[in-house]
Amino acid sequence: MSGTAPRTRPAATRDALVEAAFALFLEQGFERTTVDEIAARAGIGRRSFFRYFPSKEDVVFPDHERSLDDLRAALDEPGAEPGEEDPVARACAATLVVARMYAAQPDRSLLRYRLTRQVPALRSRELTVVGRYERALAEYLRRSFGGRPDGRLRADVVAASAVAAHNNALRSWLRAGATGDAVAEVDRALDLVRTAWGTGQGAGQAPEQDYVVLVARRGAPLPRVVRDLEAVLGERE
Amino acid sequence: MSGTAPRTRPAATRDALVEAAFALFLEQGFERTTVDEIAARAGIGRRSFFRYFPSKEDVVFPDHERSLDDLRAALDEPGAEPGEEDPVARACAATLVVARMYAAQPDRSLLRYRLTRQVPALRSRELTVVGRYERALAEYLRRSFGGRPDGRLRADVVAASAVAAHNNALRSWLRAGATGDAVAEVDRALDLVRTAWGTGQGAGQAPEQDYVVLVARRGAPLPRVVRDLEAVLGERE
Repeated sequence: MSGTAPRTRPAATRDALVEAAFALFLEQGFERTTVDEIAARAGIGRRSFFRYFPSKEDVVFPDHERSLDDLRAALDEPGAEPGEEDPVARACAATLVVARMYAAQPDRSLLRYRLTRQVPALRSRELTVVGRYERALAEYLRRSFGGRPDGRLRADVVAASAVAAHNNALRSWLRAGATGDAVAEVDRALDLVRTAWGTGQGAGQAPEQDYVVLVARRGAPLPRVVRDLEAVLGERE
Repeated sequence: MSGTAPRTRPAATRDALVEAAFALFLEQGFERTTVDEIAARAGIGRRSFFRYFPSKEDVVFPDHERSLDDLRAALDEPGAEPGEEDPVARACAATLVVARMYAAQPDRSLLRYRLTRQVPALRSRELTVVGRYERALAEYLRRSFGGRPDGRLRADVVAASAVAAHNNALRSWLRAGATGDAVAEVDRALDLVRTAWGTGQGAGQAPEQDYVVLVARRGAPLPRVVRDLEAVLGERE
């Protein structure tokens, strides 16, 4: 960073750059827009642009750093005691932070969606950004699954599942013109992840002891199955 | 592509370019190696290089196109009748195609692993490559899950799970110096995916009709549960 860079960078200027950039991308395309044009429209100099964003690509994803911080905060905030909370449920809940960022600015999200599909450099940048969310989730889950022999593997796979479910629902929302409730749709998609990977630890709403699951071969003698069932269901009485 | 490009591009020249590139990257680093140097060491001209690879980055991943073709072929080859084969099991088996590519050239895989960790442009390229494998898996699974209301979502999530499991095991193998059996390690990691997402369809070992699964709330009246169970178990008689 230049030694003459201001120590504080006004958020208003940053917002003005983002607004200018998205307007220009919409008017004349991403490739044909220069950093000079973005800076000029925002009323600042070219060199000042680079105090806010390292490149033209980065201005397309202005909120991801903050969103990544929010995701990490949601993963790390004090909650239930270890062992009392399902880490998969917490990872899924934290993933909604990202959906909220998209939902807060539907027009910008839509334009970014179109841009990332048209411009390979932006698609590539987006993959990097998504990779950082996935790594933050995986790191949290590795800590949570530390005691399991397959902890690292499971953490990576669950993190990838959560990101894939999030992105699937988000893309559906974007394809539908960013109408509807993005956060609710992402949350519903994450149910698949909670069901497949949840540890069954939870805040007591539905402790697993409240259910009995019985699996019987169809050819099993009926009286024996009923006796086994009675033995289990009758425990409470 | 240039109009003067030869219609056939000798595989030997392609291999020579890859060998030259990896040797130079090892000797002097990726950034400091130029396309001119790679071409010169392989004994061809600079312009010929670009008939084989669009960029210096691409020469680091020379086998991915073929590997992607192999993956698609493994997914599409005629096998069991639809409904008789578990699509998740087939997707996992096909994923091993990629592990085999890495395992076939441990030294090159190790060097690529080091390069992708040092050079952001290569890391970004690798994410794009991995994204293409994931998409091929997801497209196959979408076709297979077409009948389910959550088919598209499930396909994306299973594909992401398989890729994450593959990459986790492959990274462990690379961190251990690319000794050991990469394919067996990846296959073992994929068991987690098969277990979590497998549909239970299979080659007749365990058709789902042979089992009855009953879920009962612990507080459910016992006689009613037994009556429901009899109704189901009794069907065959």
